Amino acid sequence: MVDKKNYKVLYDIESPKDIRSFNTKQLKQLCSEIRDYMVDVVSEVGGHFGGGLGTVELTVALHKVFNTPEDSIVWDTGHQAYPHKIITGRRDKLNTIRQFKGLSGFLKRSESEYDDFGAGHATTSISAAVGIAEGAKQLGIDRNVVAVIGDGAMTGGMAYEAMNNAGVLQSNVIVVLNDNQMSIAPNVWQISNYFTEIIAHPEYNKFKGAIWDLTGKLDNFGDRLRKVAGRLNTGIKSVVTPGMLFEALGFRYFGPVNGHNIKKLVELFEHIKPLKGPILVHAYTEKGKGYKPAEDNAPKFHGLGPFDKITGETPKKENAAPSYTEIFGKALLKIAKANSKVVGITAAMPDGTGLKYLQGEFPERFYDVGIAEEHGVTFAAGLATKGIIPVVSIYSTFLQRAFDQISHDVSLQNLHVVFALDRAGLVGADGPTHHGVFDLTFLRMLPNMVIMAPKDEAELRNMLYTATEYKDGPIALRYPRGSALGVKVKDEFDLIPIGKGETLREGKDVAILAVGNMVRFASEAAEKLASQGIFVEVINMRFIKPLDTNLLDKIATKFEKIITIEENSIVGGFGSGVLEYFADKDYKNSILRLGLPDAYVEHGTQDQLYHMLKIDAEGIVENVRELLDEK
Amino acid sequence: MVDKKNYKVLYDIESPKDIRSFNTKQLKQLCSEIRDYMVDVVSEVGGHFGGGLGTVELTVALHKVFNTPEDSIVWDTGHQAYPHKIITGRRDKLNTIRQFKGLSGFLKRSESEYDDFGAGHATTSISAAVGIAEGAKQLGIDRNVVAVIGDGAMTGGMAYEAMNNAGVLQSNVIVVLNDNQMSIAPNVWQISNYFTEIIAHPEYNKFKGAIWDLTGKLDNFGDRLRKVAGRLNTGIKSVVTPGMLFEALGFRYFGPVNGHNIKKLVELFEHIKPLKGPILVHAYTEKGKGYKPAEDNAPKFHGLGPFDKITGETPKKENAAPSYTEIFGKALLKIAKANSKVVGITAAMPDGTGLKYLQGEFPERFYDVGIAEEHGVTFAAGLATKGIIPVVSIYSTFLQRAFDQISHDVSLQNLHVVFALDRAGLVGADGPTHHGVFDLTFLRMLPNMVIMAPKDEAELRNMLYTATEYKDGPIALRYPRGSALGVKVKDEFDLIPIGKGETLREGKDVAILAVGNMVRFASEAAEKLASQGIFVEVINMRFIKPLDTNLLDKIATKFEKIITIEENSIVGGFGSGVLEYFADKDYKNSILRLGLPDAYVEHGTQDQLYHMLKIDAEGIVENVRELLDEK
Repeated sequence: MVDKKNYKVLYDIESPKDIRSFNTKQLKQLCSEIRDYMVDVVSEVGGHFGGGLGTVELTVALHKVFNTPEDSIVWDTGHQAYPHKIITGRRDKLNTIRQFKGLSGFLKRSESEYDDFGAGHATTSISAAVGIAEGAKQLGIDRNVVAVIGDGAMTGGMAYEAMNNAGVLQSNVIVVLNDNQMSIAPNVWQISNYFTEIIAHPEYNKFKGAIWDLTGKLDNFGDRLRKVAGRLNTGIKSVVTPGMLFEALGFRYFGPVNGHNIKKLVELFEHIKPLKGPILVHAYTEKGKGYKPAEDNAPKFHGLGPFDKITGETPKKENAAPSYTEIFGKALLKIAKANSKVVGITAAMPDGTGLKYLQGEFPERFYDVGIAEEHGVTFAAGLATKGIIPVVSIYSTFLQRAFDQISHDVSLQNLHVVFALDRAGLVGADGPTHHGVFDLTFLRMLPNMVIMAPKDEAELRNMLYTATEYKDGPIALRYPRGSALGVKVKDEFDLIPIGKGETLREGKDVAILAVGNMVRFASEAAEKLASQGIFVEVINMRFIKPLDTNLLDKIATKFEKIITIEENSIVGGFGSGVLEYFADKDYKNSILRLGLPDAYVEHGTQDQLYHMLKIDAEGIVENVRELLDEK
Repeated sequence: MVDKKNYKVLYDIESPKDIRSFNTKQLKQLCSEIRDYMVDVVSEVGGHFGGGLGTVELTVALHKVFNTPEDSIVWDTGHQAYPHKIITGRRDKLNTIRQFKGLSGFLKRSESEYDDFGAGHATTSISAAVGIAEGAKQLGIDRNVVAVIGDGAMTGGMAYEAMNNAGVLQSNVIVVLNDNQMSIAPNVWQISNYFTEIIAHPEYNKFKGAIWDLTGKLDNFGDRLRKVAGRLNTGIKSVVTPGMLFEALGFRYFGPVNGHNIKKLVELFEHIKPLKGPILVHAYTEKGKGYKPAEDNAPKFHGLGPFDKITGETPKKENAAPSYTEIFGKALLKIAKANSKVVGITAAMPDGTGLKYLQGEFPERFYDVGIAEEHGVTFAAGLATKGIIPVVSIYSTFLQRAFDQISHDVSLQNLHVVFALDRAGLVGADGPTHHGVFDLTFLRMLPNMVIMAPKDEAELRNMLYTATEYKDGPIALRYPRGSALGVKVKDEFDLIPIGKGETLREGKDVAILAVGNMVRFASEAAEKLASQGIFVEVINMRFIKPLDTNLLDKIATKFEKIITIEENSIVGGFGSGVLEYFADKDYKNSILRLGLPDAYVEHGTQDQLYHMLKIDAEGIVENVRELLDEK
């Protein structure tokens, strides 16, 4: 519970303008209270946590020094932006974060004028900031533009593309590298190892005082800077600094600086504010800073549900079935044990994808490529040319990044790469940037591609096995976020015949062709409708491509009215595939396509969203009754 | 004409094995003959030219030193791979290159065991090479893997993602940076400027002898290397080299080396062959090397039709209508003159997209982001947040790279970004990697997106104008490669009402709903069919999204049989959109979808391919007759 009496300054802050006159002592007090407030609120309602605790001082310093919202701050991803939300007028709504109709867990332009650019996928901030800065230049406006990006996001190629372009343009953009040396998973950014090596070197440490402390001594800052810069230019340079890398990209480098020293941060930002051209500020921060349980266990506190604020303990979920992720991860390990050709690839999500099981047992057959989906897919294609069977496990929404590589490097060459798309469909609290609602459409258009969706965890295991055994080209399976159905799973695997669906329930009034997660709702709806005297045939199609055309031929003959249902956009998805086949055969059945609308769906629990969109059992019942009344 | 008598060694080479015993003199002779052969053949049949002339020595040295095809060479893009084709058994077919049923203009796995990885889009080679190298590691095979990548491709984020990953993995991969300092367009790679600065520096030149010449003195190579490396490690390093950047990514750097000195190249590759871990070889080459007209005019000789081999002159095309690209580029300039908010963005294709006109007149409103489509799109989104109207001009096939950014950064935020997709549909000689056959599908699934396709150049101009005036969100227009129709174009622009099609010809037997380039074939077919007593109604739909539903309602009532036609995959494309609407309204018409099949289409002239796929006028006539005979 938040108790206002515990806060001395936080409730005076309605906008960043209120902190511009604060002295260091007041800023420190505010930072401390923002941390307390985050612990108070997130322990109650859950949310992304560790990242935000690490950016408290950065956030306060940026809003103190820069004239937001005229000046722009672009946050990468937005996990780290809770402190930003708190001091930009959204303090009292923080307890609604990630809930249906509540605050977004990420940045959102429609939520606040202080959210300059929405973000859910990593590595977009520098590009957007360069755009905003060049926009100001075009309009002849003097504006500071800051992008705050984590070290994890720096493994993504877009960051490099954007910095290269900013360097060429000499854009007025300040990139703050929020380096906690461990985005979601550690050790995938090679440059970070390079930094560590330099900073540990005794020769660097001779100069360290002159470089690091620079930022703390404002009065003679300029002079000392020039002196050190002069020294650095002897030879060509007489010492290597972490900055050289960024200088090659046309950036001026400042740092490394302690990202939790509010005084130094303010001084540094004041100093660079009037400078022109691209600037990189390298700040070392600690994920979870100031809350002991989060400092000690960063992965757990990256994002989580409610927890005990004293101990950091999270209540155990009771009787929940294992997640699809868990089932997938363990099945992959079992398959890998029997088939030495199988390897796993993740883009910075060993835990989120369940690949951690493979990683634990076969670290040399596990690849974490960083937040680099494009490279990950083409890398897999390279492996496949030599007879290795790569299982590329990437969330549906992130695999969008690699659409061209899937087509150009995998499908066109018809290589045997297995795509395992976790978080396909509506993901719930993360909202529109994370819903995986396009994959059936973007994979279906690719020649040679096989696409499957399991109705439950038993089928997921068999589909994964089938995918690794299939030799004829690329093959994908997609499955939802969250708990599986809790059905019984046998130990051995079965091969599923490619392109064969199954009839789960015979009926006579209408047929429902369902894929994936929607099969269970269709079955539940059929059960309810049977008690109302309406008899629905339920088909688990299993394959979105190739379709089971024999089965479709039978259905077309037996039923006048047919419903397709999928947890994907109904534009170009599974239902459209059925329409295409029916058109090709000149069948004249009435087909109602259920699924996700041609609109971005907001955040909320998965059940709330299914219900809103009338694709849960209740919604299907309503749709079936309406369809039949039209007779 | 190729005259065998002019060649002393070339006709002895049936595979790279034949050059492994060559001495330097023989290698030089071979290089000279490869150049002559390229000039002989390409001057007759056309093709990519300048890039290949620049890689003759690199190619010969790589195949001399490495044990291909057991060792792998992965070429980036493949423009540069003509010499590779010549010495890997395809010499005598080079005169079929880029022709229907002839050799591909790019690498192709099915064409040769020496083509380790297909490539048409830039920046994929390092990722594929790392995959191949890790594949060897998995199998316990000792194999050298080389990626050859141009400096232009180094502006793409995938190159950075791949190098980062190779650095972390310490993969056994050799990256040859073929640095001609001007991929397709110059000056977009900031790091290249950095190299130039270092190399021009007097302090660097003190060391230059020890670094550059190193590669030429094999007998004491190892010793000298160790000595210089030791010197470089004093301080931390006592001199900056271009290599530092790559060292930060975990690579060992060798160079710069003269990429036309075959002796030094062979020595260098021999030296690094046994080394483990990621290595970067920095070779400076000259595009068009050895053929004066190409050295003097690199952009012209990047890729071209037949030319006079003595003068380099290309014959003037007679009476050809201006290209869509030309029309687009000039129209954009005219619009930009009247609307100061309009800016243009290209990904390394100022000439290919026609943005050069804007660049010439308003250089400060023209952005070349490099081969960085992802960044380009999010950069545009950033500009749009500040009221600038960015026109993002990217070929259809390359825009696939930015699918996620279009959705996540533009459509979701409903920003007014104009997408101008040149080369949409079948592009002809460049083949499957360059056909733009998915854009209607991948754009159509995105909420808020408007998609247009003009029937001719007059409509293209009006659509572009309409797109820049439209304020409600993202809007795209797509148009084909090659000459426009030569219709009369008036100077002023007209606004086209969003979502309104037009009836071009009334009919009674069947309606053809056509988009873009297919409208002309539909009209021609209707003309022919009228003389046969079959009366076809021809509709220019103009909009793929939103569809003109009023018009569709009328068509559904008037015609039993309807044909849709598009130069896009029929999986999820325009025709599927029509099917979706008809299903939603429960219309029972028979709909035949014409377009591109669910398969990758090979190379050939556009007309050959249209004919093969039965979507030219003749093919449509055949399709219509077949459809009506079914009555």
